[in-house]
Amino acid sequence: MAPITAVYEISGPDPALRAELVAVEQSHELPTEVAPANAVRDSLAHVRTVVERPGQPALVTVDYPADLAGGELGQLLVLLLGNVSLQDGVRLVDVTLPASLIEALPGPRLGIAGIRALTGAPEGALLATALKPVGMTVDQLATLAAEVAAGGLHVVKEDQGLANQPWAPFADRVPRLAEAVRRANPNTAYLPVVNGPAAGFADQVKLARDAGAHGVLVMPGIAGFGALSHAAELFPGGIVLAHPSFLGGFTAAASHGIAPDVLFGTLLRLAGADATIFPSWAGRFSLTQAQCLAIADAARRPLNGLPPTLPTPGGGMSIERAPELLAAYGPDTLFLIGGDLHRGNNPRRAAERLVAAAAAARPVKRP
Amino acid sequence: MAPITAVYEISGPDPALRAELVAVEQSHELPTEVAPANAVRDSLAHVRTVVERPGQPALVTVDYPADLAGGELGQLLVLLLGNVSLQDGVRLVDVTLPASLIEALPGPRLGIAGIRALTGAPEGALLATALKPVGMTVDQLATLAAEVAAGGLHVVKEDQGLANQPWAPFADRVPRLAEAVRRANPNTAYLPVVNGPAAGFADQVKLARDAGAHGVLVMPGIAGFGALSHAAELFPGGIVLAHPSFLGGFTAAASHGIAPDVLFGTLLRLAGADATIFPSWAGRFSLTQAQCLAIADAARRPLNGLPPTLPTPGGGMSIERAPELLAAYGPDTLFLIGGDLHRGNNPRRAAERLVAAAAAARPVKRP
Repeated sequence: MAPITAVYEISGPDPALRAELVAVEQSHELPTEVAPANAVRDSLAHVRTVVERPGQPALVTVDYPADLAGGELGQLLVLLLGNVSLQDGVRLVDVTLPASLIEALPGPRLGIAGIRALTGAPEGALLATALKPVGMTVDQLATLAAEVAAGGLHVVKEDQGLANQPWAPFADRVPRLAEAVRRANPNTAYLPVVNGPAAGFADQVKLARDAGAHGVLVMPGIAGFGALSHAAELFPGGIVLAHPSFLGGFTAAASHGIAPDVLFGTLLRLAGADATIFPSWAGRFSLTQAQCLAIADAARRPLNGLPPTLPTPGGGMSIERAPELLAAYGPDTLFLIGGDLHRGNNPRRAAERLVAAAAAARPVKRP
Repeated sequence: MAPITAVYEISGPDPALRAELVAVEQSHELPTEVAPANAVRDSLAHVRTVVERPGQPALVTVDYPADLAGGELGQLLVLLLGNVSLQDGVRLVDVTLPASLIEALPGPRLGIAGIRALTGAPEGALLATALKPVGMTVDQLATLAAEVAAGGLHVVKEDQGLANQPWAPFADRVPRLAEAVRRANPNTAYLPVVNGPAAGFADQVKLARDAGAHGVLVMPGIAGFGALSHAAELFPGGIVLAHPSFLGGFTAAASHGIAPDVLFGTLLRLAGADATIFPSWAGRFSLTQAQCLAIADAARRPLNGLPPTLPTPGGGMSIERAPELLAAYGPDTLFLIGGDLHRGNNPRRAAERLVAAAAAARPVKRP
């Protein structure tokens, strides 16, 4: 079977030696000379290439025997960066998996086509907002949700700041908001955030499902990467939207962690995200345009028949810049806009303006 | 109610402005002027102090209304660093919680006293090893487990590299290893690693429990922070040992993320870890002695009556340096040694040497 291949950027002196240490750390985590012969033969990782680049980190390619992942996403993550995440100077920048492993991993169930079918939008950009701020009552949130749904947004998700606070407890809030959105626009998907204790995760997802929500928002950095596919199993036909909260340790600095396209694109797609939120350029966060377009590409590109994940740029988007951003991202995008929809104190009208702005966007031809 | 207070190090220009942005990002995530008055009054975070320090990051203290966490660990993490984790230049370095929130969070069930009772070791340092490398058969692992248990180790945990690979599948491996350890030493705790798909988490923990294991190893960076207390609920009386795999994005660089004592000490203790593994100085990783002793202190210090978590330094420990390290950490420590126990090809004898070395350790008096 073809190996699992990971590419790392390694900063600092002697990258060839450090590459060998990464290969051992991430497979045997034991000096090779004391491992049994059968294990050395079958399960030890190997450094394939070390490319030194003046003024840049070295590019190191490591082959892992595919069986090391045991066909499981969690173990794939342990393998790719588990312990090495604790070391500065090593960054995971690319991953290639054998087809048999991709088939064993969850992947998106709905993907882009499923979200388009559910929201009655066969083409064009898709538009979303986040219900916030925390501290609003259920009545206030229901009014806001109905307004933006009536304004034509395809997805109304809850802000990750909503949980089970006294102002709008989960069990009170979710049925009310599902009803408000359904009445306002039958083509708008409502996605509550699920972030309670793990023992109650299934109950929360089922409550959302039975209340008439259209899926859930999950934070894999907190609930775990497996929570994405678990939610999909519990909520057949529901959208699983991944939120990057508490994942930023991996992407905030260039010298370690994981390249954003690998984390928010490839890995969350393999984990089962139908759509993946990431902090876009032109907002409050620091990823570059190139990094953001690479995330979108990793989410959508052909990958062994796996459904594509809908890239969902957010984090300070504006109506004004929607045409420019959607032109760059292309139509298979869920454009997530928050605070800017609240300006002017008429969220329905703001949503309508966003719908009009998106309709005016024309994709940029890219070579 | 007293607020949740977080202290951040903020690097770069204009820390006072950035502090305000952090407070808004982590609570309302919306321009304050467009939030409803009741939310601004009840749920907006406030910057308490900004202390600029020449040549060092500014120290910023933010007060969050305690209700923002909704009494849940997951939402506390969203609050403390969720979105801001995506920004370089902001590092969480201290957390103070109101007593009522600490009481609502899981915390350790066994803690240090429970682990001592389970392993029949009322005093002195506790000793552990990891079964590895992946690629060994069940027979090989059972032999190794029995040897190190007979040698007197208190805890024999599985390496995080073991999962459900073909060489030693979980369901075959766990009962065999539990039996091997029990026969070799009734006071040795055997902790299998649980890292399968989330939908099967409960089944894996129950299999471990019913097979006669003494707890489980959980990786909160992959399985989610809630998996720790979920495991404790499913396995009454079992030890929940937290492993730092895939959490290193938060600690690998000093300019962002979370201080190691807050992450591996305070937060994992609140989440329910009975013992917390972290990469110690004098090994393969890069935390300093001061950082490691701070982790141990955060794990053990008085915290509103919460049981202390057992600090578990590992990551390249040696028998030779065990006395020095245990003298520094003090006796309420689980000293985790891996590869060095395999040298000389007599793990039982090596375990006995480690037991003797630990017995010789005398705590250093610290001021």
